[in-house]
Amino acid sequence: MASGGEVISNKQVLFKNFVEGFPKESDMVVKTSSISLKVEGSNAVVVKNLYLSCDPRMRHHMMKGKDPGFVSFKPGSPLEGFGVAKVVDSGHPEFKKGDLVWGTVGWEEYSVIKNPAESLFKIHHTDVPLSYYTGILGMPGLTAWAGLYEVCAPKKGECVYISAASGAVGQLVGQFAKLIGCYVVGSAGSKEKVEILKNKLGFDDAFNYKEEHDLDAALKRHFPEGIDIYFENVGGKMLDAVLLNMRLHGRIVVCGMISQYNLNQPEGVHNLMNIAYKRVHMMGLIVFDYFPQYSEFLEAVLPLIREGKIVYLEDIAEGLENAPAALVGLFSGRNVGKQVVVVARE
Amino acid sequence: MASGGEVISNKQVLFKNFVEGFPKESDMVVKTSSISLKVEGSNAVVVKNLYLSCDPRMRHHMMKGKDPGFVSFKPGSPLEGFGVAKVVDSGHPEFKKGDLVWGTVGWEEYSVIKNPAESLFKIHHTDVPLSYYTGILGMPGLTAWAGLYEVCAPKKGECVYISAASGAVGQLVGQFAKLIGCYVVGSAGSKEKVEILKNKLGFDDAFNYKEEHDLDAALKRHFPEGIDIYFENVGGKMLDAVLLNMRLHGRIVVCGMISQYNLNQPEGVHNLMNIAYKRVHMMGLIVFDYFPQYSEFLEAVLPLIREGKIVYLEDIAEGLENAPAALVGLFSGRNVGKQVVVVARE
Repeated sequence: MASGGEVISNKQVLFKNFVEGFPKESDMVVKTSSISLKVEGSNAVVVKNLYLSCDPRMRHHMMKGKDPGFVSFKPGSPLEGFGVAKVVDSGHPEFKKGDLVWGTVGWEEYSVIKNPAESLFKIHHTDVPLSYYTGILGMPGLTAWAGLYEVCAPKKGECVYISAASGAVGQLVGQFAKLIGCYVVGSAGSKEKVEILKNKLGFDDAFNYKEEHDLDAALKRHFPEGIDIYFENVGGKMLDAVLLNMRLHGRIVVCGMISQYNLNQPEGVHNLMNIAYKRVHMMGLIVFDYFPQYSEFLEAVLPLIREGKIVYLEDIAEGLENAPAALVGLFSGRNVGKQVVVVARE
Repeated sequence: MASGGEVISNKQVLFKNFVEGFPKESDMVVKTSSISLKVEGSNAVVVKNLYLSCDPRMRHHMMKGKDPGFVSFKPGSPLEGFGVAKVVDSGHPEFKKGDLVWGTVGWEEYSVIKNPAESLFKIHHTDVPLSYYTGILGMPGLTAWAGLYEVCAPKKGECVYISAASGAVGQLVGQFAKLIGCYVVGSAGSKEKVEILKNKLGFDDAFNYKEEHDLDAALKRHFPEGIDIYFENVGGKMLDAVLLNMRLHGRIVVCGMISQYNLNQPEGVHNLMNIAYKRVHMMGLIVFDYFPQYSEFLEAVLPLIREGKIVYLEDIAEGLENAPAALVGLFSGRNVGKQVVVVARE
């Protein structure tokens, strides 16, 4: 027990062991430990976690990393991911008690953040839902923004295809592309999601990939003249079909390949020679490269939210107890919109 | 018989029928037909073919095209490819008898070229071997030049890997990369070719991919810090191994995938998620996009040849009779250097 600090109980979602195949709820366990809410002689901060973000990328950290630079979750320790939190004590000059922040936190009620200046952004705008900082105003938003505008440089009238289109990133890519006058089609895995894409999110068209036995034919139906920009969220067979339908000088931004994360070996992609035939540019995106542009991004997107020009769908799970199911649900497509876990509302 | 024109015999390599799997000599047949050497009332030219180029891309034209824009060879007609030729009669104001040209011609002694301004370049520099216009000064040279300098923008000190490195394009990519101070490693399919890469072509290192049971390990041995630029000529398993070894912000230019052309279905490539992890740019190259820059290219490369700063290896087959074997040999790696067929020396 730390001397002098208030010690209270701390519910946590602990990582049990490295995962092969689809992650299961039983790969995690909810336990209660205790924590001192007082920072003792360091420049750490202690935060109270409010909203946690369920992200497909967390799957990577659930496996034993082969590369020395790869950081796996530690068995027996809480999972880590993006979240929105409130500072309850600070040893760092830039953070003070009561500050709202977003960044990397533990999956628990309270976290000690050792290098807050490196892992937390301060939240200055609270006229929008705080949970948005796990989504449209956080990592997924910046991913969509940078992937579309910075990497693909779309032009008015270009044809944009987005897989996993109702997800945390996809729904924004589509709306951002519509804002500059692109023709936008998305795919998702249920009738309900397809309706949302067309009727709530303003996509020009959408289809349920699970109902298409021939993805190539589905894409030819929706893009008779081909695809200029593909925002890749799923990989595998979908990428193979897209490669057959890219237009000359098309661009593919590889943001994620969620269909592949739980396979022992990713599926083979066969149609890569189309990259040459069509002079396609295929480019990798890791959002961390764009964190220095976060303020610029925020200034552009906040007005769009306030003016109702862009909407954001969230799928809210209540309480840490439900966090494992929420995370696992990403990989079966259970969530409709950005999957968030509410730990506490304030 | 055309009225008034001199009609002479014309040996031809005819395409027999569409090819599946590896092309065989028996997919072609050498026959003698006849041709009028006089252009009658059109702006065509008649050329005498001197050197023909054997190019992997010809394999594509040996299959029945699925796309409307795809041009297959016509069964019963001569194959077509790049060649060096001499004009013997011209109905076109820009070409006159005796002009040397390179461009698309038939696999035959004499060809009628209907739109010479669209398919032929005039040769103005004859102090270098004429056959070079099928190689270093023709399509493969421009491919290497544009693919390396224009697409990949290499910087001094970067690590460049080239597959099929002793081939028509690969040997030039390596030498061009050395000229700007890159570290260059190539792979090829025989001990002899590896020796040539190291001792004649100035590569920093080279290896025989056929002797490596683990391509990933071979690449890690040659590029302990990773690959900045990969010039892709082969595809399949090699690309998969390369993807595991790309450096952050690496570039892959897809020029060809010769290991895949004779398969009914190309091999699957599994490691594409590395494009995201490493923020790799993978870009397609079709040399025709760079034909407008041909003069600029020529002015840069001619002095390098004259000053001996760059060398070019050719594998010369004598006579049209040997053309089918020469073409087929590309796909088993029989050629050492650029495969040329001599039809006539002047």
